[in-house]
Amino acid sequence: MTGFKKPNEKHLMLFSGRAYPELAEEIADHLDLGLVPTRALNYANSEIYVRFEESVRGCDAYVIQSHAAPINEWVMEQLIMVDALKRASAKRITVVAPFYPYARQDKKHRGREPISARLMADLFKTAGANRLMSVDLHAAQIQGFFDGPVDHLWALPVLSKHISDRYDTSEMTVVSPDAGRVRLADMWTDQLGCSLAIIHKRRDPNVANTVAVHEVVGDVQGKVCLLVDDMIDTAGTICQAAEALKARGAKAVIAAATHAVLSGPAIERLTATGFEEVVVTNTLPIPDERRFEGLTVLSIAPLISRAIREVFEDGSVTSLFGGQS
Amino acid sequence: MTGFKKPNEKHLMLFSGRAYPELAEEIADHLDLGLVPTRALNYANSEIYVRFEESVRGCDAYVIQSHAAPINEWVMEQLIMVDALKRASAKRITVVAPFYPYARQDKKHRGREPISARLMADLFKTAGANRLMSVDLHAAQIQGFFDGPVDHLWALPVLSKHISDRYDTSEMTVVSPDAGRVRLADMWTDQLGCSLAIIHKRRDPNVANTVAVHEVVGDVQGKVCLLVDDMIDTAGTICQAAEALKARGAKAVIAAATHAVLSGPAIERLTATGFEEVVVTNTLPIPDERRFEGLTVLSIAPLISRAIREVFEDGSVTSLFGGQS
Amino acid sequence: MTGFKKPNEKHLMLFSGRAYPELAEEIADHLDLGLVPTRALNYANSEIYVRFEESVRGCDAYVIQSHAAPINEWVMEQLIMVDALKRASAKRITVVAPFYPYARQDKKHRGREPISARLMADLFKTAGANRLMSVDLHAAQIQGFFDGPVDHLWALPVLSKHISDRYDTSEMTVVSPDAGRVRLADMWTDQLGCSLAIIHKRRDPNVANTVAVHEVVGDVQGKVCLLVDDMIDTAGTICQAAEALKARGAKAVIAAATHAVLSGPAIERLTATGFEEVVVTNTLPIPDERRFEGLTVLSIAPLISRAIREVFEDGSVTSLFGGQS
Amino acid sequence: MTGFKKPNEKHLMLFSGRAYPELAEEIADHLDLGLVPTRALNYANSEIYVRFEESVRGCDAYVIQSHAAPINEWVMEQLIMVDALKRASAKRITVVAPFYPYARQDKKHRGREPISARLMADLFKTAGANRLMSVDLHAAQIQGFFDGPVDHLWALPVLSKHISDRYDTSEMTVVSPDAGRVRLADMWTDQLGCSLAIIHKRRDPNVANTVAVHEVVGDVQGKVCLLVDDMIDTAGTICQAAEALKARGAKAVIAAATHAVLSGPAIERLTATGFEEVVVTNTLPIPDERRFEGLTVLSIAPLISRAIREVFEDGSVTSLFGGQS
Amino acid sequence: MTGFKKPNEKHLMLFSGRAYPELAEEIADHLDLGLVPTRALNYANSEIYVRFEESVRGCDAYVIQSHAAPINEWVMEQLIMVDALKRASAKRITVVAPFYPYARQDKKHRGREPISARLMADLFKTAGANRLMSVDLHAAQIQGFFDGPVDHLWALPVLSKHISDRYDTSEMTVVSPDAGRVRLADMWTDQLGCSLAIIHKRRDPNVANTVAVHEVVGDVQGKVCLLVDDMIDTAGTICQAAEALKARGAKAVIAAATHAVLSGPAIERLTATGFEEVVVTNTLPIPDERRFEGLTVLSIAPLISRAIREVFEDGSVTSLFGGQS
Amino acid sequence: MTGFKKPNEKHLMLFSGRAYPELAEEIADHLDLGLVPTRALNYANSEIYVRFEESVRGCDAYVIQSHAAPINEWVMEQLIMVDALKRASAKRITVVAPFYPYARQDKKHRGREPISARLMADLFKTAGANRLMSVDLHAAQIQGFFDGPVDHLWALPVLSKHISDRYDTSEMTVVSPDAGRVRLADMWTDQLGCSLAIIHKRRDPNVANTVAVHEVVGDVQGKVCLLVDDMIDTAGTICQAAEALKARGAKAVIAAATHAVLSGPAIERLTATGFEEVVVTNTLPIPDERRFEGLTVLSIAPLISRAIREVFEDGSVTSLFGGQS
Repeated sequence: MTGFKKPNEKHLMLFSGRAYPELAEEIADHLDLGLVPTRALNYANSEIYVRFEESVRGCDAYVIQSHAAPINEWVMEQLIMVDALKRASAKRITVVAPFYPYARQDKKHRGREPISARLMADLFKTAGANRLMSVDLHAAQIQGFFDGPVDHLWALPVLSKHISDRYDTSEMTVVSPDAGRVRLADMWTDQLGCSLAIIHKRRDPNVANTVAVHEVVGDVQGKVCLLVDDMIDTAGTICQAAEALKARGAKAVIAAATHAVLSGPAIERLTATGFEEVVVTNTLPIPDERRFEGLTVLSIAPLISRAIREVFEDGSVTSLFGGQS
Repeated sequence: MTGFKKPNEKHLMLFSGRAYPELAEEIADHLDLGLVPTRALNYANSEIYVRFEESVRGCDAYVIQSHAAPINEWVMEQLIMVDALKRASAKRITVVAPFYPYARQDKKHRGREPISARLMADLFKTAGANRLMSVDLHAAQIQGFFDGPVDHLWALPVLSKHISDRYDTSEMTVVSPDAGRVRLADMWTDQLGCSLAIIHKRRDPNVANTVAVHEVVGDVQGKVCLLVDDMIDTAGTICQAAEALKARGAKAVIAAATHAVLSGPAIERLTATGFEEVVVTNTLPIPDERRFEGLTVLSIAPLISRAIREVFEDGSVTSLFGGQS
Repeated sequence: MTGFKKPNEKHLMLFSGRAYPELAEEIADHLDLGLVPTRALNYANSEIYVRFEESVRGCDAYVIQSHAAPINEWVMEQLIMVDALKRASAKRITVVAPFYPYARQDKKHRGREPISARLMADLFKTAGANRLMSVDLHAAQIQGFFDGPVDHLWALPVLSKHISDRYDTSEMTVVSPDAGRVRLADMWTDQLGCSLAIIHKRRDPNVANTVAVHEVVGDVQGKVCLLVDDMIDTAGTICQAAEALKARGAKAVIAAATHAVLSGPAIERLTATGFEEVVVTNTLPIPDERRFEGLTVLSIAPLISRAIREVFEDGSVTSLFGGQS
Repeated sequence: MTGFKKPNEKHLMLFSGRAYPELAEEIADHLDLGLVPTRALNYANSEIYVRFEESVRGCDAYVIQSHAAPINEWVMEQLIMVDALKRASAKRITVVAPFYPYARQDKKHRGREPISARLMADLFKTAGANRLMSVDLHAAQIQGFFDGPVDHLWALPVLSKHISDRYDTSEMTVVSPDAGRVRLADMWTDQLGCSLAIIHKRRDPNVANTVAVHEVVGDVQGKVCLLVDDMIDTAGTICQAAEALKARGAKAVIAAATHAVLSGPAIERLTATGFEEVVVTNTLPIPDERRFEGLTVLSIAPLISRAIREVFEDGSVTSLFGGQS
Repeated sequence: MTGFKKPNEKHLMLFSGRAYPELAEEIADHLDLGLVPTRALNYANSEIYVRFEESVRGCDAYVIQSHAAPINEWVMEQLIMVDALKRASAKRITVVAPFYPYARQDKKHRGREPISARLMADLFKTAGANRLMSVDLHAAQIQGFFDGPVDHLWALPVLSKHISDRYDTSEMTVVSPDAGRVRLADMWTDQLGCSLAIIHKRRDPNVANTVAVHEVVGDVQGKVCLLVDDMIDTAGTICQAAEALKARGAKAVIAAATHAVLSGPAIERLTATGFEEVVVTNTLPIPDERRFEGLTVLSIAPLISRAIREVFEDGSVTSLFGGQS
Repeated sequence: MTGFKKPNEKHLMLFSGRAYPELAEEIADHLDLGLVPTRALNYANSEIYVRFEESVRGCDAYVIQSHAAPINEWVMEQLIMVDALKRASAKRITVVAPFYPYARQDKKHRGREPISARLMADLFKTAGANRLMSVDLHAAQIQGFFDGPVDHLWALPVLSKHISDRYDTSEMTVVSPDAGRVRLADMWTDQLGCSLAIIHKRRDPNVANTVAVHEVVGDVQGKVCLLVDDMIDTAGTICQAAEALKARGAKAVIAAATHAVLSGPAIERLTATGFEEVVVTNTLPIPDERRFEGLTVLSIAPLISRAIREVFEDGSVTSLFGGQS
């Protein structure tokens, strides 16, 4: 036989963008690793420069970025990191985007709109990503936007354990803040073993097409209401829902969501509404000035680090969610 | 200037697979065209053979197939037709699939499942399709599965006009047969100006995880209930919903859906349940032996033919649905 | 060095579609493996659903399907299996198609025909296949239709060993049933060391363009004639050839072919013709009701299992056929 | 409506490589066009430079090259021309390769060989070719190597008209020089209405595996034999066939082939063998020093120019060969 | 003939991103067109939304964006616009980027860097762009980064006409501010017919590797020096060059550059240095607060509009620069 | 767990084209390996045939070819080798092209030119190359032409070590032969710690546009001048530069360049000019009849072999050039 043989090794390496390095560090700690030292900066004209300060040849790379605002900045930085890894001969590149960018632009509502969530999948692929990992995609169909494996993680076990540790769920009702989230609420009722209600926003059929009524469907009188959603952005929907629940006699209202976008008037609205507790994860950074009394932030890092370990070791990500093997 | 110039022309040509040629003929009639004569057959070992009996060079081709059972047979025939058109120098190829195949497999519910709806989009692309046209996709995100333009048509105006012509909508309530179709029901209430109710299937929180209750949410007593869905397949969901509505005092129950899949026990169930009327379109063929008293089949051909005309003439498909320009 | 290293492993896994699981099981037995437990079914509307019941992450997957009728069904099932494997992070996916689907549609005989054999190669690629393995392609050029490695196996050694073990080849003549198979017959004469004859179907030049004469070219009087072909489909060609040989004084006629398609009137024709023996392999399933006296079915499983082992272990598939290394 | 509209035009432009500009000029003459003025040269280190001296923006380009020796030079020149056209905004690019390069390497005969005919198709595609046009591909399956339309032209009508104009075909027999060309010979007999014979090269089964016998199958005694093939390269096969025919009493031997490769000893062999006539076309250049008495060169330019016209005008290439429409 | 034919039309439509709509409007004015009305905004979490308010089906689209800071924002907006056009069936999409983003990251200076200029080309392609148009690329090789036609425009004629109209060029010397721009300076000397000098920054060979000397190469004493570059970003290089020229006796110093990036300390430096005039174009927006005495801004709109017209009408962009035809 | 696991191995194999096997052998020797036995030849009509005589399944292949004249021949041979490796299941394929073909055609200088350097990158990719390795690319941007990793090696350390071992650099001046090579000369001065001069070819501004003056910029009187370039092709530039230096009082002139193309009149010019020494590497073959007194050829094999080892072992190629890790 001509040539030379040697045993093959796999080499796990973690990389972080600049959007939220604390999360990446926490993930790395759970894996007993360091992040690969990386030089990243913006030039005077706002262009991004990235360079890895160690050889990455042949590695199994996980590139972690939290897509907070300014979101286009952080998407571009992650694309540039992936390009640099591809050109430096990384063997496999997994984009870790705990909060998938542009997830809500997942279809054309009207003619001549983009489908930006698909565009993001294509951009990552083009830059050189082989795989994606994300938490609680706004629509599960986004998995199908990427031409390759997607590890879709669920924060529900993390959030629900916190709730059941802290509250008596026998007097609790899970509430969907609008019709589009009923399936998520359904999963919560299974997890907690409690009843369900729905807030239904609709136009009054008697008065043409204008007034939106927040109907509460189901029994909430005297109950502790748990409002659940995948994200809290400007918090308009969830705060109106909470008001409707309280008007219908709810004893207390708790909110639980995976992604704490908390844009614009969110903090003001949430603090004004009087939630018993608002429970979120840290898929996105929450700076101190946007934290408030009653906000609980659970870490998503243990889940992501376990998923990375399973992917690296050819284990099963499904098994993290009670799936069979 | 070297060379030779001549004015360019566009040439619209319609092709039909063998699944439901009557629909294609109806579409062609609306456009005052004939279908391109096509030889199609299965060899003894079940392989398909297709040949067009006229030059298709440079044409703007629309390949119409209705994806009824045996659905894999008809998908493959359409792929083979697209391949033949591509190799025969058709200029642009639009796959017309009034009922998108595998639309319900649009995400991974669990690990190690396919996303067959995305796979279909990729297969059409690979064979040579430049564009897709479909009616009422099960999930609007499927538009994002295809890397190119998708004309997404809605049957709602066709169906709702029939209802409002025939019934007094002032005593009518639109009902979603489960939580996943509430948005569709919402659009119906806007169209008809009437109230809304929901059938909510859920597990009894008191008895662990087993019994499914069909709760009726909203007021249906003495109302004419219009159950709406995108498709009726085995009719289990819609018939159970109708029973629940009648048990709650509904005066009459009508069902309206775009796609009449009508598989397995569907006919038996629908006739047993006693609907006032079941209104569907002919996106899929409904052979005489599966038609029954009370079934109304509206033609989707006028809508598809108008959409093809807009696409061919660089008009606006959006405008067919009241959009601006 | 940042990160974490561990030795890399290869993991061979075998998967079977539903067309002919007995063959896959036989291949697995030869490799001392089990097939990966797989859930596969058709929904009421004929759509296919597949799920693997074990983690397949990082595996070297071999997806075995026998493309019997209904062939489009089984092609689609294999495509869906490949899609599921791709999305579940299999490392490498080899499509094993002992009988390549649509192999005879390998060129345009006339304008506006498809080249379905190329289309199949593209569909497998699009779904996610990295490699193909097949037995006795109808035209060897089909290897060039796939953009990647193709392991092309030959059944000739299996078939010819059976013949030479059982018959005295000194009185045998190999016969090509038509002009297109002469090269195959040539290989047989080399293997068995016996003479060659040809059946030549042609139009009578004196009578315009109509009557097909089955001329026997070469000496067959008193010989045991071995008719060879790559497949027996409706058996028309091979039975007419046998009649011509007997009319010219052949002592006995044996038929040998790799693929037993046996469509339509094949069984009736073969039993009516009076072959000494019809020898085929089990690249395709032959249900009991299509077996008849004189039919010998040799197993292709040992050959395929050896090829899979060579591929998995980076050995040489060429070496299985007496090639050097 | 925003924007500006104007009628669209098609613009046919012909380009020629340097391998055989006389053929391109002849094609252009038939179309009443000039070739686009082109600067092409080799630098001192043998790299090729090409530039078109006129705007080609928006044109329908036909790039004609005859793949004579040095074949790699001319393939590369054509690739570079296509690249320049793509970057200069040509609208559609058709590679015209009357003799397809590397056509005989259309499959792997043994392990670890290339499939260079497929590679050529991919290289043309990569450079920017949208379509291919070629004459008498060595294997018709090569059409399937290109992912797009292929116009496959047949020289048979051109060659056979010459034969039937000049000879009395009632005393003629068409002969295939080996088993691989019987199908071609078959088409000739249909065209000329005469009988068929075959030269069968095979190893003597009695003497192990060595001596090649040139058996003449069919009646040639006293006949004018017409040997047909797709190409004459070193002329070994066809000259041995002619000798065998003469030894069996043929009255005269004519050879007809599309492609006059005429490599190495071809001229010497052809002149030594004593053909009545050798008829070929000018798909490849035949310099004066390689022309000999008895060689007739028919022009392929009328056929190619008619095909280009049909393609440009969205007519039917199939119709050139008596196909319907 | 089956089907329906109608004459084909081309439809020019102009679109503008939000980075610098004034330039797009100016280009549109030169073409006597309006920009297509477009709705574009950022959501609270900074995601971009775009929708065109008119049908764009079949149009020849030109999407104009000036890549000023925040550059990643404007790149992403342009990508989203292109995606929306592709999905809305635009026929051809040309990205007009007068200042190509990330042009200076056109190679790896060291290991593990990205090549962001190539990445940009790939992102535009992936989103759906068929063509690119840009002005004075930092390296001409960037044309080769895009897999398709690139219209590369030169501002030199615009800038040099201004200089020669205003100054006596007989006493002028063109100066390259560093070694990398000598070729550009060379083109200026040809255009203006005047002499050349170079500023050479280098390390002092006597003092190890540290001090950068700004050597003036060539005669500048008493001359009007014209410093030329493709862009002025932070203005460090050009201001140091001007100081060196004045120290060597230059009578006056003028600066001319295509792209006025003017980041960070640029304005401060330029005003402090005392240029006779700084001449730039408006490929990038220059807000009033960054304009200063001595700054002349020439419009690039006439050049871009003429190029768009040539592209739309299949004319010659080369001809705009004195090229032949 | 179903299936079978075994440790994975990497297998380095070296392949050589026929352009310059001596270099490949030297590289192999440095790695203590043999070249894979390969059969390569040209058929009579000049088509190339290649076959590897050993299994290459799963190997990490390095395909070495030196792109000397006839360059198109050797490019095509390398493409065919890559195709054969891809189809034979090589795991990873690196094209080693010490002198990148068509490197000088890296941009469009005028309209309607190709960008052949990009075309080459695309051809290698299409054939199946995963990676490229090259020495001293004419423009570093060519790295960005390939969609994948490029190992860009520098010969500067090899060449400069030879110079500093042999000459007293305290009296040496590095000279760039024209404006386009100043950056390279700059790197040399850093390496050797000596001063810099430039040859500036330009048109005389007083006499319109015609006479090229070879100005010497910097002090060369009494110095040993080291002319540096990336390649010496016809040697026109470098010999004119040497004459100008001698006319300005240079004590001696040495030339150093990586690539010894040495086309056309190069040898004649170089020997006539009277260089002290001409130092090159053997990235290209230099046959004995083109060697002359004063020519020193340094081997590039040690550098390439070390780079191959780093790539194979997932080390760092950057580290070979003093980079950190």
